[in-house]
Amino acid sequence: MVTPQAEPELREIDKPTPGPGQVLLKVTAAGACHSDDFVMSMPADAFPYPLPMTLGHEGAGVVEELGPGVDTIDVGTSVVVYGPWGCGVCWFCSQGLENYCSRAQDLGIFPPGLGTAGAMAEYMIVDDPRHLVPIGDLDPVETVSLTDAGLTPYHAIKASLPKLHGGATAVVIGAGGLGHVAIQMLAHLTSARIIALDVTEEKLAFAKEVGAHEAVLSNDDAVANVRKITGTGGAAAVFDFVGYQPTIDIAMGVVGTLGDVSIVGLGDGKAAARVGYWAQPHEVSVRAPYWGSRSELIEVLDLARDGVLDVAVERFSLDDGTEAYRRLAANELRGRAVVVP
Amino acid sequence: MVTPQAEPELREIDKPTPGPGQVLLKVTAAGACHSDDFVMSMPADAFPYPLPMTLGHEGAGVVEELGPGVDTIDVGTSVVVYGPWGCGVCWFCSQGLENYCSRAQDLGIFPPGLGTAGAMAEYMIVDDPRHLVPIGDLDPVETVSLTDAGLTPYHAIKASLPKLHGGATAVVIGAGGLGHVAIQMLAHLTSARIIALDVTEEKLAFAKEVGAHEAVLSNDDAVANVRKITGTGGAAAVFDFVGYQPTIDIAMGVVGTLGDVSIVGLGDGKAAARVGYWAQPHEVSVRAPYWGSRSELIEVLDLARDGVLDVAVERFSLDDGTEAYRRLAANELRGRAVVVP
Amino acid sequence: MVTPQAEPELREIDKPTPGPGQVLLKVTAAGACHSDDFVMSMPADAFPYPLPMTLGHEGAGVVEELGPGVDTIDVGTSVVVYGPWGCGVCWFCSQGLENYCSRAQDLGIFPPGLGTAGAMAEYMIVDDPRHLVPIGDLDPVETVSLTDAGLTPYHAIKASLPKLHGGATAVVIGAGGLGHVAIQMLAHLTSARIIALDVTEEKLAFAKEVGAHEAVLSNDDAVANVRKITGTGGAAAVFDFVGYQPTIDIAMGVVGTLGDVSIVGLGDGKAAARVGYWAQPHEVSVRAPYWGSRSELIEVLDLARDGVLDVAVERFSLDDGTEAYRRLAANELRGRAVVVP
Amino acid sequence: MVTPQAEPELREIDKPTPGPGQVLLKVTAAGACHSDDFVMSMPADAFPYPLPMTLGHEGAGVVEELGPGVDTIDVGTSVVVYGPWGCGVCWFCSQGLENYCSRAQDLGIFPPGLGTAGAMAEYMIVDDPRHLVPIGDLDPVETVSLTDAGLTPYHAIKASLPKLHGGATAVVIGAGGLGHVAIQMLAHLTSARIIALDVTEEKLAFAKEVGAHEAVLSNDDAVANVRKITGTGGAAAVFDFVGYQPTIDIAMGVVGTLGDVSIVGLGDGKAAARVGYWAQPHEVSVRAPYWGSRSELIEVLDLARDGVLDVAVERFSLDDGTEAYRRLAANELRGRAVVVP
Repeated sequence: MVTPQAEPELREIDKPTPGPGQVLLKVTAAGACHSDDFVMSMPADAFPYPLPMTLGHEGAGVVEELGPGVDTIDVGTSVVVYGPWGCGVCWFCSQGLENYCSRAQDLGIFPPGLGTAGAMAEYMIVDDPRHLVPIGDLDPVETVSLTDAGLTPYHAIKASLPKLHGGATAVVIGAGGLGHVAIQMLAHLTSARIIALDVTEEKLAFAKEVGAHEAVLSNDDAVANVRKITGTGGAAAVFDFVGYQPTIDIAMGVVGTLGDVSIVGLGDGKAAARVGYWAQPHEVSVRAPYWGSRSELIEVLDLARDGVLDVAVERFSLDDGTEAYRRLAANELRGRAVVVP
Repeated sequence: MVTPQAEPELREIDKPTPGPGQVLLKVTAAGACHSDDFVMSMPADAFPYPLPMTLGHEGAGVVEELGPGVDTIDVGTSVVVYGPWGCGVCWFCSQGLENYCSRAQDLGIFPPGLGTAGAMAEYMIVDDPRHLVPIGDLDPVETVSLTDAGLTPYHAIKASLPKLHGGATAVVIGAGGLGHVAIQMLAHLTSARIIALDVTEEKLAFAKEVGAHEAVLSNDDAVANVRKITGTGGAAAVFDFVGYQPTIDIAMGVVGTLGDVSIVGLGDGKAAARVGYWAQPHEVSVRAPYWGSRSELIEVLDLARDGVLDVAVERFSLDDGTEAYRRLAANELRGRAVVVP
Repeated sequence: MVTPQAEPELREIDKPTPGPGQVLLKVTAAGACHSDDFVMSMPADAFPYPLPMTLGHEGAGVVEELGPGVDTIDVGTSVVVYGPWGCGVCWFCSQGLENYCSRAQDLGIFPPGLGTAGAMAEYMIVDDPRHLVPIGDLDPVETVSLTDAGLTPYHAIKASLPKLHGGATAVVIGAGGLGHVAIQMLAHLTSARIIALDVTEEKLAFAKEVGAHEAVLSNDDAVANVRKITGTGGAAAVFDFVGYQPTIDIAMGVVGTLGDVSIVGLGDGKAAARVGYWAQPHEVSVRAPYWGSRSELIEVLDLARDGVLDVAVERFSLDDGTEAYRRLAANELRGRAVVVP
Repeated sequence: MVTPQAEPELREIDKPTPGPGQVLLKVTAAGACHSDDFVMSMPADAFPYPLPMTLGHEGAGVVEELGPGVDTIDVGTSVVVYGPWGCGVCWFCSQGLENYCSRAQDLGIFPPGLGTAGAMAEYMIVDDPRHLVPIGDLDPVETVSLTDAGLTPYHAIKASLPKLHGGATAVVIGAGGLGHVAIQMLAHLTSARIIALDVTEEKLAFAKEVGAHEAVLSNDDAVANVRKITGTGGAAAVFDFVGYQPTIDIAMGVVGTLGDVSIVGLGDGKAAARVGYWAQPHEVSVRAPYWGSRSELIEVLDLARDGVLDVAVERFSLDDGTEAYRRLAANELRGRAVVVP
């Protein structure tokens, strides 16, 4: 078992039993994420839920046992877990936007690994079959990260699709865990020209490998260099997967009239885009989306089934889970770290 | 208990017990609908589910008891039932479009009153709390019909809202159970001019009472008379709540370029609109929608809470339920028949 | 003639002659606007166009003479002028979004009254018949302000319509020239609950007269007081017709998850909304729209024809034009000042 | 000069002079199209415009001379012509939807080659610079057909893009002049699986060459064979570029719930899709779009500039123009016939 605060650690716990309406998964893969890092850095009294807690909000598994009353999924099905659990009933949840559930806080509902026991274990309880998406023959280890590193950029991109027609430009800031998936999605879902920004030549080369048409260093000249490519028109959509003040400033500097700026990266918690009549081209929309909806996860897995997504992954055993987090914190990973029990 | 085939009849059955994930309602109101009529007219071997069955796909009640594992709704809550039950898991259901569930047939899932025991009883089992919408202080008898007679037109109208800007015309054919609610919705959700069609002067007067700006007899001159009002532009959206060949022909005759025709009425099962390059104004969209989504039902109840919907209703006791169906079949009702246990 | 810099003044100039493709209007009404004020406050060397210039970007008139090659409008037609002239050819203009023309600056195209001779005169040249919308029997004096004070809020509202379903809340900050028209539009185009904010009880009473359901003083308690009405859900759309830092802060404070904030007022040129992951509810969209499109102006006039818009207007003769601007600057007007030659 | 009725023929006419607001092009390419065939087959008294007339509604050229008052384009610019001319002023035209102009008929406005002198000549008059799109370095001969054979499928596809997410299926019926461009567009604008249908193995091979994932013979088994690929879900969008009864029946047979059917081919003038509650999956939208909008043509040319469109073309001299039409009528062409003066 892995717990937050200071270093995560491995602990033995009993195999859980699914209650009414629940599903027990035998975990096949669990992804580690920067937001786990963020969780572990929180002071103990900032947690709205009891500790220690099993980490892992990116989970895949095989259905091991059905709780009473569950009849819409079969034992033995290979699945991934939709992470942002909500009440299932409110106006947002009724559209599958459980990431924006209006009652989760009041009802004490938390995502697995972010308040509820997560996927960094041999077994995992999922509260409702609606939070499972079958993946068929897809490799769980290569697929599990799509539940966050795929779903989050997909949700952000989908909102901007109508603006990404032929001749339009999409800018991706940060070609890491989420950004390199975003580039692949943009390449397959649109005909837009894709410009990627990152801080090293190695990352830029990687961005081009996965589909960026142009790659530009994210430095003081970035806005000017991107504008050289887009011309005065600017970008139709900018996706900032970093979210620190310098990247947000770049995003606002390269977007064009009627364009979209999506701030996806959590940054340092203080950064912000400035919007006002005099601040940027006309009618730019700026927003900070969070994770994605249930139907969008189904669509992401369909994309994976089409073979158009290739998430860079490093595998770790459950015993090496703490090492995975160490390397994640040290920025030593290429792609996502996935723990395989 | 009311059963299909020949005449419906009243029977005594035991109070049911909610299983895991289910909710038991004490029924406060149950609406009778033309589709019940249609069900009862089917030959016995055409039913894909066991008979006899309790009718009632429009249901309201108070939560009486929670099955194991249910924790998102409280005992004592006054609710209406979302009728078109689906699996809750597939791509359509994940967006709340359970009316279009792609697995319902395979899994043997039927709406209450249309395959599963319905609301024409003292108690009713609802399979999942996501199929309940709290109604607060709204009168269940006046509200229950909105689950079908409100949700169905709302779903059809919502798809056409972007076309119903100022200066546009909406045509409603049939000012009965669904049509008179559609008129009220159009009057409050759009600034379009509303033209209602029906076959009697009394119905036309009723249509104007509930918000139609113009009312036209649905006869051989209907197309010409509507065109006199719209001019050559035609209507931006036409809603046919009848669905017989003559009304569909009127719909296709009055719609304008880029307009929508929604065929909502079930008609005689054989009628159809003809669409082709030479058949109607350019790029008319013709479709036959069915019922509505979960979030749309929540929105319909919000409209009711705003006081902008007024469904004409006649009350019957459970003992008089068979009489309600007789008068429904004989077209002797003004508005919806609601059974109050 | 009225010129910018210091006080506007009246001058005699010759009746102009329409060139090829142009239309000469005999002006029937010209609206004065706060942006004229802004223009007149600019230092002389900040003007990108030659001075003196006839003011008036809100214009109405009767077609007096057609330039060579004009054959899509008749002499004698009563019209209003679409103000944000563009090239008519670029991607934005090809959709009628001339307000966002990508070539206007390069080609030296300016709106009438904002770089080209405007409507504050007896006659006015319009560069192309596509910039005219016939108004039929509508009173030009009561209608002319809709070309800006109607079109601008309509454009902002139209983008948020999909979010303003039943049960949703719209907040309008500033019940003045644009805001009081916005309230009327929201009341007729949506079923949303409308909350208006302004700084005096008199303005709040006015807001309720024109259709606001609730009115709240725009002061330090405004966010808390609006939240008392909306509950934790917040507003689905906020329209800020002021654009100073305090009003933008209120807008960001009352908006809810997935909501829209439109900053329409020009404010003091420095205010800005801050957007970032930690700054507001999830996925709020913030934007600063400008004026509107050609088809939207046609739709606004259709709304006026339906009788649902009532713009408060004070009339001035051309001789009193300078007085109109004095009272405008002194905030002594109720509604818009319209000059009638 | 080429004229309709019976055989087209070549005639000498004077070089025309552009009037006010007009532009004279030196033609660089003119496409021949099946609709020319249709025009030439009409009886003489069916023409609403004077004969003889120069054919050619797909035109490209270099700006040779500007009429008085034209200042938004330069002499020497290489352009293509937007064909479906409208009034430029009505609600449809104000959005660039001149293909649906509501006043064209009343004002006697016809597209070039379809009522006005077209592009099958050395010089061509274009009525307004808004009907020209610069093409830069693109080869006019390879580009000219995009004004119809590109714009028409693009317009149809664009309306269905929101439905063509990952995992969705698009069906293209007819892999000829328009269909083979549609396949390329679908491959670059969506991640949908593309199934093409045509009547010969050669055409199916061609369809796969240009991007179809699957190709199926268009015969009596077509519906069953497509359904084998899509499963019970059916297709999210079907584009019928033929429009005869058998292809329309296939379209309606393979579309799935909430899907779109676009009937683009002109067929035999009598075919039609049947839509009604009992006729097809729930809420299928059926429509017959026509040509496309001005901004869509700009987007199509941006796609061409990205190098993702490759229109199969056969070149003819102006002297061989009649031969081009003979082979078009005889179905002996692979791709589009383009006349190069």
